[in-house]
Amino acid sequence: MGEFMGASDRISRVRSKIADLGLEAFLFLDMPNIRYLTGFTGSDGALVAGARNNILLVDGRYTTQAGREVQGADIRHYRDKTEGIAQALLDSGWKAIGLESTAVTLQEYLNLKARAEGLELRPLEREMSTLRVIKDETEIKRMKKAAVLSSQALLLALEGIKPGISERDMALELEYRIRQGGADSVSFDVIVASGENSALPHARPGFRKSEAGDFIVLDYGAVCGGYRSDETCTVALGSISDKQRYIYAVVREAHDRALAAVKAGATCRDVDHAARSFIEEKGLGKYFSHGTGHGIGLSVHEEPRLSILSESCLEAGMVITIEPGVYMPGLWGVRIEDMVLVTRDGCDVLTTVPKDLIRLS
Amino acid sequence: MGEFMGASDRISRVRSKIADLGLEAFLFLDMPNIRYLTGFTGSDGALVAGARNNILLVDGRYTTQAGREVQGADIRHYRDKTEGIAQALLDSGWKAIGLESTAVTLQEYLNLKARAEGLELRPLEREMSTLRVIKDETEIKRMKKAAVLSSQALLLALEGIKPGISERDMALELEYRIRQGGADSVSFDVIVASGENSALPHARPGFRKSEAGDFIVLDYGAVCGGYRSDETCTVALGSISDKQRYIYAVVREAHDRALAAVKAGATCRDVDHAARSFIEEKGLGKYFSHGTGHGIGLSVHEEPRLSILSESCLEAGMVITIEPGVYMPGLWGVRIEDMVLVTRDGCDVLTTVPKDLIRLS
Repeated sequence: MGEFMGASDRISRVRSKIADLGLEAFLFLDMPNIRYLTGFTGSDGALVAGARNNILLVDGRYTTQAGREVQGADIRHYRDKTEGIAQALLDSGWKAIGLESTAVTLQEYLNLKARAEGLELRPLEREMSTLRVIKDETEIKRMKKAAVLSSQALLLALEGIKPGISERDMALELEYRIRQGGADSVSFDVIVASGENSALPHARPGFRKSEAGDFIVLDYGAVCGGYRSDETCTVALGSISDKQRYIYAVVREAHDRALAAVKAGATCRDVDHAARSFIEEKGLGKYFSHGTGHGIGLSVHEEPRLSILSESCLEAGMVITIEPGVYMPGLWGVRIEDMVLVTRDGCDVLTTVPKDLIRLS
Repeated sequence: MGEFMGASDRISRVRSKIADLGLEAFLFLDMPNIRYLTGFTGSDGALVAGARNNILLVDGRYTTQAGREVQGADIRHYRDKTEGIAQALLDSGWKAIGLESTAVTLQEYLNLKARAEGLELRPLEREMSTLRVIKDETEIKRMKKAAVLSSQALLLALEGIKPGISERDMALELEYRIRQGGADSVSFDVIVASGENSALPHARPGFRKSEAGDFIVLDYGAVCGGYRSDETCTVALGSISDKQRYIYAVVREAHDRALAAVKAGATCRDVDHAARSFIEEKGLGKYFSHGTGHGIGLSVHEEPRLSILSESCLEAGMVITIEPGVYMPGLWGVRIEDMVLVTRDGCDVLTTVPKDLIRLS
């Protein structure tokens, strides 16, 4: 048996959702959801969750692996995915099932509809999106491991940073350190943005070489046992201006205020507001162009979203990022991000790089 | 202006397809197709190709970048993607447009349909899938660069392989060499499968440590200027058995026969048959469980597919892989892969690692 635990509780939650929706079964095609519900770590497959039984459908590559990993589901093998799913649905005699409309392409849906004639396939967008928001002990352990490992990799990678190193080379070194440290892989392509590129919140590492006076934004994470971490450090290379120091201090304070606002029962909007209102007070609101954070787990972006519009409440066991930023167009930018576990009274910060300004020479 | 060339010819081909299909416009959502048609390298966007004009829709992150990169399309900025697309379609006054049904999620389609009332959105699966099959000079140059660079990285990475190294560490070293050599990134997650794992055609690198007597299958590629390479070497660690040597020789001969069958005008099925029939003659047909190769370019798997069922013909300018394999369950496997450019009389092999059995000690 694999290390997968807790299938039964997760499946029970799915079954009560299915019943609430007046459906007989639900077709999962989103691989993180399938992993969450069955333990299956393959890259392709489908899960049909019914009131009494679950069927995991996999292709020939994964029959052995699924047998080793999966609990709480019968395993069926398909040659053609749509045909396999349609057959499983028709065999069960169901009349109405739900499916994840964001995890299926239009073509897959059309093919399935053509093969499963007479069966109502109800597209559902958000109904299963909160399934994974509360993390259990095993999940938290993995996320903590990923966070610690990537924080350690950052500190090692910083040792090699000096003027004249390209963003690509810095990103490559950091990624190498993360994987060498024992991660399954990186959480997402490492972002390294130096100098004027740090003013772009979604920069990709390019050929620009670092210079004295740069801010360098490094945004990175590790995957351990499928679970992801996410952290951002903005470091200073050589001596920086008073304005840079000031903006760093503003973002740092916004970050700390948002952290202080995190606890079970707080709304996501309140946490966003804690960071945003401080940045706005300083007249920098228009330079903070994204939300304050997001849930994270098997996927790097999950529910809840910490934005100005979010109606959700934080609950103990959620893992979220806190990542305010200020981006001065054409000049440079600062983002400071930690990943935290929401607790009853506050939060535990899982990432470990200190957020005092790091100065490299 | 960026390095993007050839937009006008590509767009003309799209326009004649649109006319042939009786449509007024086509909505592209597949990012490699959008890059191919406009030069835009961002990670998200949409392209509306009409009879007279093209509109590239991007979000705020990409306005500057699109302005720098894109030729032959007007650039529009959206806040909400579906809303932006719907608005562009409605503004144009079209009645019927096609869209790529494999590149849109069911939810995106439903949202678009709700917003673009009265407009026929025709889901088309294959009509645009052959758009990129013939590569031009610039594309071939980039693919050659990617191939050479990844072949060189392999030779460097092999120097570090000896008994006791895990698949993960070998994969990490190879990926590091590819990126250090100047690739934008790796073409796909590097596959390293040693010993019994080499019997799995789609193995992921794990913790197994290499031992004397192993076959080690390394499948890897680089990305240069967006274009991908793909190559597989199977190397022997220490002394191997007569049976291993024999199977290697069979796969090598199958690979060479398929290569010899490649030329403009040959059918994909014929090339597959050249490899497959030889493996079958040796009584090993059931151990060759996948197709002989696939087209490659901006995506790692493109048209045409070299399989037993494929009706397509090769044309000069296509770039394809030739990758027969024999996988002995529970024992080990061999795959040998080159990436080649189809020419009028044969092919040019772009990957450069010699396919004689490499023996490491």
